[in-house]
Amino acid sequence: MKNTFGNNLSVTIFGESHGSSIGVVMDGLSPGITVDDSVIKGMLSKRRPSGAISTSRAECDEYIIQSGVFNGKTTGTPLCITIPNRDTNSRDYAETRWIARPSHADYTANCKYHGFEDYRGGGHFSGRVTAGLVAAGAVVMPALEKLGIRIGTHIKSCAGISDRDFHDLQKDLDLLSTLDFAVLDGTVADEMKSRILEAKSNGDSVGGVLETVVTGLEAGLGEPWFDSIESLISHAVFSVPAVKGIEFGAGFSLAEMYGTEANDCFCIDNGTVQTVSNNSGGINGGISNGMPIIFKTAFRPTPTVSAPQNSVNFKEMQDTVLSMKGRHDPCIVHRARIVIDAVTALVVGDLLAGRYGDDWAFKGGR
Amino acid sequence: MKNTFGNNLSVTIFGESHGSSIGVVMDGLSPGITVDDSVIKGMLSKRRPSGAISTSRAECDEYIIQSGVFNGKTTGTPLCITIPNRDTNSRDYAETRWIARPSHADYTANCKYHGFEDYRGGGHFSGRVTAGLVAAGAVVMPALEKLGIRIGTHIKSCAGISDRDFHDLQKDLDLLSTLDFAVLDGTVADEMKSRILEAKSNGDSVGGVLETVVTGLEAGLGEPWFDSIESLISHAVFSVPAVKGIEFGAGFSLAEMYGTEANDCFCIDNGTVQTVSNNSGGINGGISNGMPIIFKTAFRPTPTVSAPQNSVNFKEMQDTVLSMKGRHDPCIVHRARIVIDAVTALVVGDLLAGRYGDDWAFKGGR
Amino acid sequence: MKNTFGNNLSVTIFGESHGSSIGVVMDGLSPGITVDDSVIKGMLSKRRPSGAISTSRAECDEYIIQSGVFNGKTTGTPLCITIPNRDTNSRDYAETRWIARPSHADYTANCKYHGFEDYRGGGHFSGRVTAGLVAAGAVVMPALEKLGIRIGTHIKSCAGISDRDFHDLQKDLDLLSTLDFAVLDGTVADEMKSRILEAKSNGDSVGGVLETVVTGLEAGLGEPWFDSIESLISHAVFSVPAVKGIEFGAGFSLAEMYGTEANDCFCIDNGTVQTVSNNSGGINGGISNGMPIIFKTAFRPTPTVSAPQNSVNFKEMQDTVLSMKGRHDPCIVHRARIVIDAVTALVVGDLLAGRYGDDWAFKGGR
Amino acid sequence: MKNTFGNNLSVTIFGESHGSSIGVVMDGLSPGITVDDSVIKGMLSKRRPSGAISTSRAECDEYIIQSGVFNGKTTGTPLCITIPNRDTNSRDYAETRWIARPSHADYTANCKYHGFEDYRGGGHFSGRVTAGLVAAGAVVMPALEKLGIRIGTHIKSCAGISDRDFHDLQKDLDLLSTLDFAVLDGTVADEMKSRILEAKSNGDSVGGVLETVVTGLEAGLGEPWFDSIESLISHAVFSVPAVKGIEFGAGFSLAEMYGTEANDCFCIDNGTVQTVSNNSGGINGGISNGMPIIFKTAFRPTPTVSAPQNSVNFKEMQDTVLSMKGRHDPCIVHRARIVIDAVTALVVGDLLAGRYGDDWAFKGGR
Repeated sequence: MKNTFGNNLSVTIFGESHGSSIGVVMDGLSPGITVDDSVIKGMLSKRRPSGAISTSRAECDEYIIQSGVFNGKTTGTPLCITIPNRDTNSRDYAETRWIARPSHADYTANCKYHGFEDYRGGGHFSGRVTAGLVAAGAVVMPALEKLGIRIGTHIKSCAGISDRDFHDLQKDLDLLSTLDFAVLDGTVADEMKSRILEAKSNGDSVGGVLETVVTGLEAGLGEPWFDSIESLISHAVFSVPAVKGIEFGAGFSLAEMYGTEANDCFCIDNGTVQTVSNNSGGINGGISNGMPIIFKTAFRPTPTVSAPQNSVNFKEMQDTVLSMKGRHDPCIVHRARIVIDAVTALVVGDLLAGRYGDDWAFKGGR
Repeated sequence: MKNTFGNNLSVTIFGESHGSSIGVVMDGLSPGITVDDSVIKGMLSKRRPSGAISTSRAECDEYIIQSGVFNGKTTGTPLCITIPNRDTNSRDYAETRWIARPSHADYTANCKYHGFEDYRGGGHFSGRVTAGLVAAGAVVMPALEKLGIRIGTHIKSCAGISDRDFHDLQKDLDLLSTLDFAVLDGTVADEMKSRILEAKSNGDSVGGVLETVVTGLEAGLGEPWFDSIESLISHAVFSVPAVKGIEFGAGFSLAEMYGTEANDCFCIDNGTVQTVSNNSGGINGGISNGMPIIFKTAFRPTPTVSAPQNSVNFKEMQDTVLSMKGRHDPCIVHRARIVIDAVTALVVGDLLAGRYGDDWAFKGGR
Repeated sequence: MKNTFGNNLSVTIFGESHGSSIGVVMDGLSPGITVDDSVIKGMLSKRRPSGAISTSRAECDEYIIQSGVFNGKTTGTPLCITIPNRDTNSRDYAETRWIARPSHADYTANCKYHGFEDYRGGGHFSGRVTAGLVAAGAVVMPALEKLGIRIGTHIKSCAGISDRDFHDLQKDLDLLSTLDFAVLDGTVADEMKSRILEAKSNGDSVGGVLETVVTGLEAGLGEPWFDSIESLISHAVFSVPAVKGIEFGAGFSLAEMYGTEANDCFCIDNGTVQTVSNNSGGINGGISNGMPIIFKTAFRPTPTVSAPQNSVNFKEMQDTVLSMKGRHDPCIVHRARIVIDAVTALVVGDLLAGRYGDDWAFKGGR
Repeated sequence: MKNTFGNNLSVTIFGESHGSSIGVVMDGLSPGITVDDSVIKGMLSKRRPSGAISTSRAECDEYIIQSGVFNGKTTGTPLCITIPNRDTNSRDYAETRWIARPSHADYTANCKYHGFEDYRGGGHFSGRVTAGLVAAGAVVMPALEKLGIRIGTHIKSCAGISDRDFHDLQKDLDLLSTLDFAVLDGTVADEMKSRILEAKSNGDSVGGVLETVVTGLEAGLGEPWFDSIESLISHAVFSVPAVKGIEFGAGFSLAEMYGTEANDCFCIDNGTVQTVSNNSGGINGGISNGMPIIFKTAFRPTPTVSAPQNSVNFKEMQDTVLSMKGRHDPCIVHRARIVIDAVTALVVGDLLAGRYGDDWAFKGGR
């Protein structure tokens, strides 16, 4: 099942940028989870383009819960959410139909789908499809929080500007939940945004790095082989458009340490097993050790830029030059932050579903 | 299926370091693939510890094909390979049974398996289990090569020493196939090894970065959502012990580029669509674009070090100090290289199996 | 994935009888399949209640293709169809909320979902959800017919009246495609219907047996273990409400034959391998042998009857007597016939997807 | 994963009749299940051919637990059991290589595997492979019994002779556990056997019907769609060679009843919800209702008979006559009984694993 993720809590997405609706079906939700519209709306709004640093496409993200919720709670049967597409630009895509936008999926989609793909606005490859993921994550998130599990992501760096590191995780998570532009150090947010606008004014785009933390996850989740926590999170995260790298804990810098530096020594703290450092990002042998899960994801710059680029017409098999017009994002890192939160929530929900079974949101008990 | 990887070509692993055998079952192999013992032996020997830079545990890696091969070719039914454990050290593991080796899986295994885990020599978490993965990869590799697909990995950096970049991919792949210590620049191999030995003599360990390339992969493989090539490779790679990061193409450095720098412009070359640069690592929108797939994996240093480390007895819930003796690897990067090749081969085989069906090794035709 | 069926062509269903919509997501469709609205409408109309022998609930079955179709053809990305619920009876279900209708799923749903289930009109257990299956089957059916594969089902027996056996499969399939009430022998249809009406007038219900045939399926599809054709079809068929038995070929009567009677001898006919008899129902060792696939499914009578029945209030844990009013079907066998066709089409599509890969509807070629 | 069954407790089988070993890998076993060699040996011996009514092939069924068991208990990591093939008849199979034995899988295997299949003794299609299933079932069975769940199968009919129905389930299960030839009514066993021998002496074979019961299964297991209990059991059962039909509860006879006859009225008995009759076989809406699960499976006669049969040489594409010699079973129903018990145990284990998660054998608690 290609467009499905998750072993026990599974999510299937569907939809194209200019089709009728995009949406998601979730299966394996515990019955009795309170579905909180304010959380869904809040998370969708954090993904929605807003202001000059995003595309001007108006995405109202009105959603319809088609099934799986009764009296405000999950039934335990599949929950389908559709999000109708409204502001679909009616301009003629046919003109550039066969010209491959560099680092976009036009050419690869054509190789895979033989020309039958819906090419309008990126079709099924459109970042818009992540709205479904966000909605799905928003169904799960309150259930996790009830179990004491919190998830948050900040923009570690973007457009050449870096945010501070996490200091006090719980306070930082509180702060992030209030921010539309997820930078912990308020003094750098404006500089970051102005750099994004600068790139935009140059017809260019920028990327960045997101850092995500999961707190309150118990020890003992994940699998030694194939379904390690790193495997599951990376699998989910790499399906988010523009992600090209991920590292857990100290990540790539671990490769340059000695073992004695890299190792996280254990200690007893407050009657529980903890580690003094957390270079492992909360994961040993693929399995959670009770410390915060920490990982960073690298986002490439949005591939849509205004400058003319060399490209090809892959029908005529001829070189050409492409100039792209139209609405697009000079940066998607600040919007992607909530998508990473959402897919992380889905992975954590899936881990709990494997561990505790059908009633996982209640740790198996009722 | 936790210990299984792959949608259409699937691999299930089993075994513990000190059990009877470790092994692997492959399902979804095309019938008619020639099984080449010299390839299996060759790949297993590249993983086997040898010389002072590895553990002194003698792993003979004699393997038994229990099923799935007839007259030297795959039958199309499940292929099981077992690799008996021989040189299992009989020392008493009970002494340190409840002491968590830092950054090892002792504590997390106990949380997950409630003390029923086979803790001897890392049990099911042991790197030894990767021998099964290598054998599985070695079954698939010749089938891929027949299709013009080649896979190779070199040690990009280790112990603070860097190898050169890939120059000429086909020649470099030729070279790598002959090397036990996979460094392209022969002049740095000795320095790297001596740094590893230096760490060893200090009772310490080192990590490194591997760089892997896949050439000859056609455009159009992979999925836009969830089963992107990046998702599948990272899922597989993060189940290899000690991997803590992965990046595709220019990876994390893409996060610092402008879109105009990062984009890979298309051109027609030799009548085919190609890209001028390859910052995307051969993947657009999760799908292969016909250029080489390139990715780097970060390995943490082996967590086993001789120096005394603070730790805990997680049964008594007491702080303690742990000093580890016994055979172990000061570095596993040079051995892990062939494991990465193997799991990459399995991912590529799975992609082809999805694309072409049961007879994928023959591109669906017979 | 509980509500998902299929390995390579997969179908996920969602929805409750009185929710917003029921629907289905299909993944693994070949790109380029022509989506034929007249087939979808035609198949939905065969499932729709009509006339005195069905419930009086008006199900208009207006459907919306939310995704996966572009320019009238499948894109190869997930195809979502929603079917809004309209004529939902607003009567108060609360009255009988805790009384278990005999042989319905009220009690078992409560055990499973702890009371969070949408109990109105059977909720997710409602036969109405099969409309999504029918729509999904209708997407696949024309693709199969293009490959020369035809599927049809007749009412072998119902309400004590038997239809004739298949005579000439192709002519019988032609006939069935024109019939709303799928009886091959026109002389028994009226008698069957009047017996159904008689049961209805007694406040009772009847069951029956459907016989299904698949012609034109090539030899060599299916798996020896676990995914035998019998396994896949039975798995799909037993998720259709009211099915309680299935048999392939001569089925249960094979248990009473000698081997020499039961065996299907092979012969060369028209240059192809065929069998003289077809007691095996076209399947040897779980794999198609090129002869027609034939199977029969037993449907229990609709559990909703008007007569008072002993039952329990499972909240109060007290015995009670239940009298059911409201719209219901005295028989669902004639409507179920197209549901069986549909799920069979989905199984056949999945078999082809495994055999031929992504472009299965074109036998792997384009 | 073709040769794998189960969502959370999964079983993968491998092996050919004349290969090195047949075997099984189980994944998703709770840690801490006591592995009881006497149960494994006992169940394997019930499957083993013995006496004149079975093949004379000596199958010693010595098994090796390769992994997943430590100190006599499951570790929670994959458990692999191999069963070496010993008494492999060395006669020349080449002679009849291309002649399709009627109702065997020779021809279909060739269509599927293009001639690369191991054709000796049925290869991967051999009933011998079920020994792995039996061993796997024997690992799970004691865990189920600890939870109060019992499984047993008797020969409802064979060779034209019928056994009595179940009377007192617990006593009957006690009796069955002691029987090698599983007939409840001791007075008919000899007649059944002599009819089998009579068929054998005529060079013929017979089939039969098995009836299986599961007691002690709690209400609320199974899924409404696709993974109904009927779907899961039938999926597993139809992968057992020679099964051609299955019915649950009153099965096919339900099709002839009125709803008022067929319905199982609920009552409160001993403070629990029960049904007065059990025509539904313990399943409503795909989900267990707490009553015994009951189903019957139809076995065709062994296809191997001595009498000459018309057949074809599918290489030369010519009609021919086949006379089979060698060891074979005149009936496999009495041996298949324990295979059905085993796969049923695997399904029940999988249901519990979905319901209760990783520690399912302890209902999720430790």
